[in-house]
Amino acid sequence: MNRLALTDADKNVRDWFVEEAKGLGCQVCVDEMGNIWATRPGMSTPSGLPPVMMGSHLDTQPRGGRYDGILGIMAGLEVLRSLEETGTKTWRPIGIVCWTNEEGARFPISMVSSGVWTGCVPLSTAHSLTEVFASGGPGEEKGGGRKTIRQELERIGYLGEQKCDWREMPMAAHFELHIEQGPILESSGKKKVGVVVESQAYKWFTVEVEGREAHTGTTPYNQRADALMAAAEIIRHARALGEKDGRGILVSVEVFQVYPGSVNTIPGRVGFSFDVRSASTEALSSFVSTLRPELEKVAANAQHNSLPCKITRWEETTDSPAQLFHAKCIAAVTQSALSVLAEEVGGDTKRAKELVQENMTSGAGHDSVYTAKRCPTSMIFVPSKGGISHHPEEFTSEEDCVRGARVLLEGVVRFDRDVCWPEDGGRAREEC
Amino acid sequence: MNRLALTDADKNVRDWFVEEAKGLGCQVCVDEMGNIWATRPGMSTPSGLPPVMMGSHLDTQPRGGRYDGILGIMAGLEVLRSLEETGTKTWRPIGIVCWTNEEGARFPISMVSSGVWTGCVPLSTAHSLTEVFASGGPGEEKGGGRKTIRQELERIGYLGEQKCDWREMPMAAHFELHIEQGPILESSGKKKVGVVVESQAYKWFTVEVEGREAHTGTTPYNQRADALMAAAEIIRHARALGEKDGRGILVSVEVFQVYPGSVNTIPGRVGFSFDVRSASTEALSSFVSTLRPELEKVAANAQHNSLPCKITRWEETTDSPAQLFHAKCIAAVTQSALSVLAEEVGGDTKRAKELVQENMTSGAGHDSVYTAKRCPTSMIFVPSKGGISHHPEEFTSEEDCVRGARVLLEGVVRFDRDVCWPEDGGRAREEC
Repeated sequence: MNRLALTDADKNVRDWFVEEAKGLGCQVCVDEMGNIWATRPGMSTPSGLPPVMMGSHLDTQPRGGRYDGILGIMAGLEVLRSLEETGTKTWRPIGIVCWTNEEGARFPISMVSSGVWTGCVPLSTAHSLTEVFASGGPGEEKGGGRKTIRQELERIGYLGEQKCDWREMPMAAHFELHIEQGPILESSGKKKVGVVVESQAYKWFTVEVEGREAHTGTTPYNQRADALMAAAEIIRHARALGEKDGRGILVSVEVFQVYPGSVNTIPGRVGFSFDVRSASTEALSSFVSTLRPELEKVAANAQHNSLPCKITRWEETTDSPAQLFHAKCIAAVTQSALSVLAEEVGGDTKRAKELVQENMTSGAGHDSVYTAKRCPTSMIFVPSKGGISHHPEEFTSEEDCVRGARVLLEGVVRFDRDVCWPEDGGRAREEC
Repeated sequence: MNRLALTDADKNVRDWFVEEAKGLGCQVCVDEMGNIWATRPGMSTPSGLPPVMMGSHLDTQPRGGRYDGILGIMAGLEVLRSLEETGTKTWRPIGIVCWTNEEGARFPISMVSSGVWTGCVPLSTAHSLTEVFASGGPGEEKGGGRKTIRQELERIGYLGEQKCDWREMPMAAHFELHIEQGPILESSGKKKVGVVVESQAYKWFTVEVEGREAHTGTTPYNQRADALMAAAEIIRHARALGEKDGRGILVSVEVFQVYPGSVNTIPGRVGFSFDVRSASTEALSSFVSTLRPELEKVAANAQHNSLPCKITRWEETTDSPAQLFHAKCIAAVTQSALSVLAEEVGGDTKRAKELVQENMTSGAGHDSVYTAKRCPTSMIFVPSKGGISHHPEEFTSEEDCVRGARVLLEGVVRFDRDVCWPEDGGRAREEC
């Protein structure tokens, strides 16, 4: 699946979504980030109460799967269809929001549009974000330079006039059904649904290690300051420290570049990215504060170098603290999950409880991590086969998708009934 | 210094060289690879005896030094000037050959033109070699596509008609003065001159390790097949095996690419190059035959992976056996070096002997490694400060350069007198 944000393929699925939503009686509004807001009126209309929204995204990674993001939108449409078909009335409007460029794969800020909505990312920054490759989607002209989000929103006709701002477009709550993208549900006794109560804290670092370029054929081992050998020891040591830590620290290294990259030159410089995560913001901070000095020792004394290398760059590029989700949303999801599962297993509530994974942490970022700053939010996870995501082999069974959509439906309706009818919430979190 | 082969900068230095050589009474001939052959007639003329040549190159790496290659040509001109100024007659013609694209930096085969001369590289392959970057030198048009060696030879006016073939352009011998490009002379008791008796054997491999891409935030340690962690352990293990081997095995890793190179994706694939060298062709073969199975074990059981990775590619891209140089050339260089040094230290032959490093192995490739297949060949090394080369800081003192040129002069004259006067060699090696 390749549907990068704001390509022709994205325009096509947006047009389809708008048609579907209108067919279900929704009002559709596009904001200045191209987010599509489709809402089915509630009984309180025209009182202007904020809607309960089901949010996710339609864009994918360049070689992505068919479930990441898309499931949340498709399930949202099914929820609205069920409400229509059963003639169910809700107090508040219920709707779907399709967030633009969640993946950050084409325009390099993930969850940029929910970031604008919360006020965490300035609109001007988002509008002028430039695509990573001068690529575009099929049918677009190549070689015309790299385009910005604003240019592409205009080109595909999705630059709306509505302000993208939590105060102008408030939500009573944001629920997101998503595939887990990890192996926990599958591997921990075949859980069927996960109730997500928080997102992990993470920090990203850009690091450089310098040694000395030299000729591979003329430089004996005892004269080498091989930046690659040092970096190989550094990343393994960092990983070992993470494993040993005991506070659920996840250390990964992904981007990794070796200079000069010539077949007979010993590398003089290596640049790489560290991704460090923990469910606890404090544990993460404490771990990374000890990391650099530890790794500087390794650079200076790497086993396979007689001459020292140095860490010459250590830049924290992202700092995202852990985000707690909202107790009322979590309660609505938990009760729905238990109810849906109990129905499946013939009313056996004990068995149903075994099939629900409560208190899950979201390892990945999601638009819900932003919305949680401004409105009650929670997420529902369904299993990912083999934990695989961002890959064509990403898979969630039809049964799991349907189950997730049922939990979403019940969760939204429960939240609307318990919390909003009579109204006692649904404003920005500060006001809740 | 940036003088890539066949750029305008290369044309300028070639034009200058041709003028200088003609000014010294040389006949100048350009062959179909753009190699410039400048020969000063010997007394045997017009008997057509093959000349004794001093060969090296004028091209550099993109960020190279001012000595690598250039020293051998400049010293050659000084030798001819000395012969002229002292009225020295030689039996055979003595000359200089400037080999095209020795570095392989612009057109990606190193020593391509001496390779054509020996018959090891087909002329058509060499002529159609395409530049690595659509770059060219200063003053050239950009963006006109990548050019071939033949196009660039034509453009700068150095596509000669003379066949580039050892049978058509025979040499009595090939002597090459070159900077060491390594630290051995400097670090082993301040030796001043090195007598090179062989070049190292080397093999290059392109290797790929595959694991499984996964999300950094959602994939626990016990579910990872991280190709980068596996590769880090593999390259360190290969290095450790090389160190332990005891047969002078040099293992290096240079080109290193990590896929997909996205900040929140655990690498699923890593590609890299191995460069393995030894003075002994047999030791090298025996070492590499055990390398792959050893490293496959590491891939499958890397310390920081719970799931196995695999080596999915192991391609030998280059196999260059060790090349012995010619006893008569080595003897001429050794005697010259001892004589030049003895003169410097007031006739103290014992001290002179201490300043000469005999039996050196060339770690790097040189045109001499090719010529040695077809005519008597040897090399003279002078010290490289800090062993640094292919870098702007490359440095050899004026004193060392002059000393090298004196050894070259004496070596060439000795060879001419001892070997060729009366003639008893100077044909292709097979005939010697």
